This record gives sequence, C-alpha cells and structure tokens, in this order.
Amino acid sequence: MGSSQQKFYTSPLAVINHLVKWTLLSIPVSVITGSLVALFLWSLEEATHLRYEFPILLWGLPASGLLIYWLYKIGGKNAEAGNNLVIDEIHKPGAGVPARMAPLVLITTVITHLFGGSAGREGTAVQIGGSMAAWVAKVFKLGNQDVKIILMCGVAGGFGAVFGTPVTGAVFALEVLAIGSVQYIALLPCLITSLFANWVCISWNIHHTQYNILFEGSHDEWIPYLHVDVLLILKVVIASIAFGLASNLFAVLTHNIKHLSKKFIKKAYLVPVAGGLVIILLTYLIQTTDYNGLGVSGPFPDSVNIVNAFHAGNVEYYSWLLKLVFTAITLGMGFKGGEVTPLFFIGATLGNTMALLLGAPVDLLAAVGFIAVFAGATNTPIACTLMGIELFGGTHLVYFAIGCFTAYYFSGHTGIYASQKKLMQKIV
Amino acid sequence: MGSSQQKFYTSPLAVINHLVKWTLLSIPVSVITGSLVALFLWSLEEATHLRYEFPILLWGLPASGLLIYWLYKIGGKNAEAGNNLVIDEIHKPGAGVPARMAPLVLITTVITHLFGGSAGREGTAVQIGGSMAAWVAKVFKLGNQDVKIILMCGVAGGFGAVFGTPVTGAVFALEVLAIGSVQYIALLPCLITSLFANWVCISWNIHHTQYNILFEGSHDEWIPYLHVDVLLILKVVIASIAFGLASNLFAVLTHNIKHLSKKFIKKAYLVPVAGGLVIILLTYLIQTTDYNGLGVSGPFPDSVNIVNAFHAGNVEYYSWLLKLVFTAITLGMGFKGGEVTPLFFIGATLGNTMALLLGAPVDLLAAVGFIAVFAGATNTPIACTLMGIELFGGTHLVYFAIGCFTAYYFSGHTGIYASQKKLMQKIV
Repeated sequence: MGSSQQKFYTSPLAVINHLVKWTLLSIPVSVITGSLVALFLWSLEEATHLRYEFPILLWGLPASGLLIYWLYKIGGKNAEAGNNLVIDEIHKPGAGVPARMAPLVLITTVITHLFGGSAGREGTAVQIGGSMAAWVAKVFKLGNQDVKIILMCGVAGGFGAVFGTPVTGAVFALEVLAIGSVQYIALLPCLITSLFANWVCISWNIHHTQYNILFEGSHDEWIPYLHVDVLLILKVVIASIAFGLASNLFAVLTHNIKHLSKKFIKKAYLVPVAGGLVIILLTYLIQTTDYNGLGVSGPFPDSVNIVNAFHAGNVEYYSWLLKLVFTAITLGMGFKGGEVTPLFFIGATLGNTMALLLGAPVDLLAAVGFIAVFAGATNTPIACTLMGIELFGGTHLVYFAIGCFTAYYFSGHTGIYASQKKLMQKIV
Repeated sequence: MGSSQQKFYTSPLAVINHLVKWTLLSIPVSVITGSLVALFLWSLEEATHLRYEFPILLWGLPASGLLIYWLYKIGGKNAEAGNNLVIDEIHKPGAGVPARMAPLVLITTVITHLFGGSAGREGTAVQIGGSMAAWVAKVFKLGNQDVKIILMCGVAGGFGAVFGTPVTGAVFALEVLAIGSVQYIALLPCLITSLFANWVCISWNIHHTQYNILFEGSHDEWIPYLHVDVLLILKVVIASIAFGLASNLFAVLTHNIKHLSKKFIKKAYLVPVAGGLVIILLTYLIQTTDYNGLGVSGPFPDSVNIVNAFHAGNVEYYSWLLKLVFTAITLGMGFKGGEVTPLFFIGATLGNTMALLLGAPVDLLAAVGFIAVFAGATNTPIACTLMGIELFGGTHLVYFAIGCFTAYYFSGHTGIYASQKKLMQKIV
C-alpha cells in the first residue's frame, strides 16, 4: 500500500470505537426525539379530529396566525429560520440550534393544523430532532465535528420517526445537505438514530398510515421482483416530468408568496392574519375543507385526501393545484409545519390525474407521485426511492427510481430548503 | 431568486433536450453491451457445463493462463488495466478505452471459467460496457464531458445487464467512482442505459438466477413492509462486521498475491502458469471442484455454491475462506473475470456460517452477506442495498442497509478498484 493509502487506513478497533460512541450518543437523541415526535403525531391527530368535529375552528385561523407570530416573537430568536437553520449549522456549526425550537415548532404546528392551515409534519420533526440533538451536544460538550454528526443524526431520527421510514430518514439527512450528491459521513450514526427514534415513537403506540399498491405488473419470470413494461415506463416518465414541474411550481410559489407578503404587508404581524383570511376565503369558495390540514385522510369516506388518491373516483383533476396553493399560502404567510405531507398530497393526487389521463394504474402513479414530487422539491432522489420501498414495498423499485430521478431533473435548482448547497448543475 | 440561484437555472426544455440526446445515445450503447453481455453469459454457462462434464479440463488451467497472457500481450495494450482503466477514463478522459477490450476480456474470462479458475462476471461486463461506450463516443465524436457520461452509462449498462439489476447498475456506476460519496451527474442517462441493456440481454433469452428468502420476520403491523427485531439487528451487525473484514481480507490478499508473484516470478508469462498449478494443487488437496468457476450453482445437488448457501446443511464453516483464497489466486495471478460473483459466494457462505453461529435465519444472513461483502470490497453501500431489493425483494430493506453500511465501515480503504478516488475517511 502506498502512502496515500496509508493515510486513509482505519483500524477495525477505531471503527468499533466510533460506532460504540455514536450508538451511545444516539440513545438520548432518539429517546427524546422519538418521544417528542410521538407526542407531536398524537397531538396532530387530536387537533385534526377536533377540527373535523368543529369546522367553525377555521374562523380562528387569522387569530391563530397572530398567536404563532407572537410566540416566535417572544420565544423564537433564530428559531424562525427552521429547517434552514439546522442545515446551516450542519454545514458550519456556529450560533447553534436553540433547544426552544422543539416546543415552539411543535406547538405552532399543532395550532396551524387545529385551525385548518394546510401544512405537513417533516419540517416540525426535523426541527425537533435537530434542536434536541443540539441540546444533547451541549450537555456532552461535543466539538464542532461531532456537532455536525449529531445534528445529522437528529434530522435522521426526526424524519425516520415521523414517517416510520428509518432507512429513508438516514439517507435523507445526508442527501438533503447539498444538491447533486450524497456524502457518507455519518452513514451509520444516522441509521442507528433513525432506527432507535422510530422504535421509540412506535413504542408510544403511534401508528403510521399504511398504503397499498394492488397493481402487480406483468409477471416476468426473468426479473425477480421487477415487473417492467416498456409502455408503462414511458407513461411514468411523462407523469414524472409533471411531478418535477409541480415541485418547482410549489417551491417558486412559496418563495414568492413569502417575498410578496413581506413587501406589500408592512406590519409583519398582519401577514399570518391575511394568510388566515385568504385560506378561509378559498375554503368557502371551493366549498370543501379537504385542502385544509394534513390531508392524509379526511372527515368523510369520499374526501379528497392521500389515502383516497390511491384509487380512482374521488380526486378532481385540479386537486393537486388546490393543495399546492393552499399550502404555499399557509407556509408562505407565517404558519408552521412541514412541506412534505402536502407534497405527498400534491404528488398522489397529480399521479391520480395523470394515471386517468395516460391510462396507467392509479395506485402505481399515485405512489410514484407521492415520492417524486417530494424528491423534486427537496432534491433527494435516492432517499425518496428508498421511501417508496419502505412505504409501498420493493416490487415497483424501477418505477420509483424513474419517478424520483426524473422529477429531480425537472424541479429546477430552487428547492424548498434555501440553505441546501448547490454543488452542481443537474445537467452538464 | 438571487443571482447565485440564477446561475443554476436549467429550463425544462434544456432538460428534455439533454434526456432525448442521452436516450438516443444510450440505444447503441445498450444494444451492443446488452447483446455482448448476453453472449458472455451464454458462453459462461456453456463453459461451466463443459467443465462439469469433463473435470479433466482443470489440468489445462496453467496452459490456458499462458494463452490469456499471450492474448493480452499481442492484443491488449492498455486493456490489461481493466476496470481501473474505465474508472480512470471517467475521472479524466485521455488515452481512451480501446474497443478491443470487449472481445479480449470476454474470451479470456470464458477461458478462465472453462478451465476452472475462480472468478466472476461483473468486471467483464463493466469492461464490455465501458469499451463499447467508448467506441460509440468515438463514432459520434463526443467531447470530453460527454465521454465521461457515456462511459458511466456503459458501466451501468454492463452491470445492470449481467446481474439483471438495472437500478443497482445505474447507482453503482456513480457510486464506484469515489469512496465516500455519490455524485448525481448522469443519474438518468445511466438508469436509461441500464434498463435498456438489461432488456436487450433478457430478449436474448438469458435467465438470471432467482433467490428466495423464506424468512418473513416478526409481523409488526405498525411498520408496513418492515419487520424488525432488535436482537436480530444486533446479530446482523455482528455478522456484517465479519462481512466487512472479509471484504478487506479479499482486497488485501489479491493485491499482495499480485505484488508478490510479480516480485518472485521473474518471467511474467510464468505467473498465470504458476497460478494455474496452485489452483490444481488446492483443488486436489480439498478433493472438490466446488470452489472453481463461478459458483452460482454446482454440478451436484449438495455442492457448496451460492444457491445452496441460502439454506443450512451444505456449506462448511470455512467455505468462505476457501473461495476467497481460490479467487485471490486466480485473479491475482493473471486470469480474467470479475470479483463480484466470488464476493457473492464468500458473503453468502460466510452469512450461512454466521447464521448458524449466531442462531439467525440462514437465508436472511446469506442474502445480507451476499450484498455486504460486495459493498465492502467496492465501497458501494447504497448500490448494494438497492441490489438486495432487486434480487431479494423489499421486505428486508432495514437488514440490507445495516449490512451494507456496516461492511462499508469495516472494509478499510483499499477496495478492489485501485482507481477509486479516496475522498474522505470513513470515520471522522
């Protein structure tokens, strides 16, 4: 071995040492993160059911926006920056992620959902994981290099627990940092934390929604587990171009709504009030509350929601666009929560529409849309391909990969996380 | 959008343009590569059956080594560098990958297998793909940037076709270039070529071996498709440390055998002759031909081979080590073929042994070993996790990820490809 190789030599004992250290450090991170995520998911479910029972709560949206504004004003400091702060701190540990971020984002997200804002969960979970990891780092007085790793672990744990997808959580935490690459620093610490946090969350008796793809493909005995059909692949590619463009539209619209409301509404506290009023107005215009809240399931059996997007009949051809607008206004005008569940909604309903348009299996395209719009908006095609497997099983891996890779190409370079490093052009 | 964002803007039309161009370019690459890989797989099967029928062929191994030496001497030029030449050219297009590499490596690999050398297939397929892609690049007079992409496509196509795993092929082509990262340049062109090449190969009526994992895990309704068991995870981690160390041992032993035979056998043409003699001697010492050739299946129902490693009863506890030694000698002393199928053999048999030792499901640990030893030796943990899904289905994704990631940590920085860039330490 040459000297350049020697420099890179790592003894198995050093690796075991590293892994034992990170297994131990991952325990507090995942116990706290997993438990808070469980509390968050439980509160979210309660808030959603309360809203179904008392639809009048929607009228409280403008006031709740004011409350959220005020909570961040008195308690927030730099916590307002949310996911971007966590990503920034991983790139360059500095100011630190404040521990108060966790309760703040948890409470304000539940408020957003209780009063019918259209938002998600992953942002909240990532911020809970990130801030609790930062707190553990402080307690154990970790150095900068270790702070980077523990923050990634927090992101992995929060993401893995909130969606019940541990492998996706680990890869997402590494892939989200930059556009165009995954770096394997902290591969195992992230996977360990993500697995632990998911177990902790499940141990609190939290159930994740199950999805089913009935479509089994053409049985081709030469390719075990892969049932591929050329025409269907072409349809998936066309649909995935639409998924990528929808990701881009969502990112650009949210950016612009944020920018324009700052510019035209001089008093910052009026932004969420105005946002709440617009959501109320839109809800009454379209005469349905299907686009408020999380949208995984709905108050009625025939609601437009993610679960129903997996079969034909309930989704309107413009459902994806309505959810996109509702969410861009909610998140662009000061309410809290993640973007990912709405992206699942947008993708699954757009997939439903594209399937009917192209004559493809509805459940398959809903599943591909579910992961591909998310892949495009966050520039994480590999994590999202893995998510397809964790949520829907491995049978349709080829379609998942095509969907996520294609959406990644067509989603532009904006993305929903401004702090993501832009390492390279998507095409050269 | 700020100016730093503008710089990265890519219009959907430019992306479509890029993808149409690469879809068209991938057609000749995948038709030629897929067909040659099909011819190669067919020849391999014929050679293997001939060897089963006429065991006396083993005595021809030293002479066949001389023939291979002579073939590369008169026709080889820089083709001798094999996979490393392809990787070097992707990093820095220069001297070019000669088209003669394809027939040379195809013929010499079949010779190696016919006379009972212990070798694999992926190296041959990657070199066929790489050299044919380089030839297409020459015909179309592509520039350096496009040569890089088309070479990656060739690698993806060769790999995807030879194992029937298109998604793995695409990710492998990107992941193998450097230790510690995947860069997404050419993500879709690689996937397109890999899918096409696999179809072409299948259309020639080539069948890939099917593996089955009967173990279904503890049914845990909270995690759809993922059936996780803490104790079993711990067992998988321990086994995977062994897998990683086995990868490292293989890489180091092959390097050293190559180095020492160069040093002590002054006449270069005598190296493969000596190698052939050692393989004959070893075969007669252990009284079985189970460790010659590919090892996917065997001449007898109770042979030690990859398929039989998936259930208890046929594999010896030292089978993995015998295959490791046979392969290191074969490839370290001038015979041709890939390393990956022997790595599958080493991993599956070591997994079999570890399963009996640890009291874990034999088929599960054989499958994890199959992909994890390969992940460690090539430093491609994500491609190998995906390969687990493509070969064995998505149910055991968590174990596949744990196995491949852990083996990656414990396999050192040597790897079987000397040209792989060493971007970072595995632990920090």
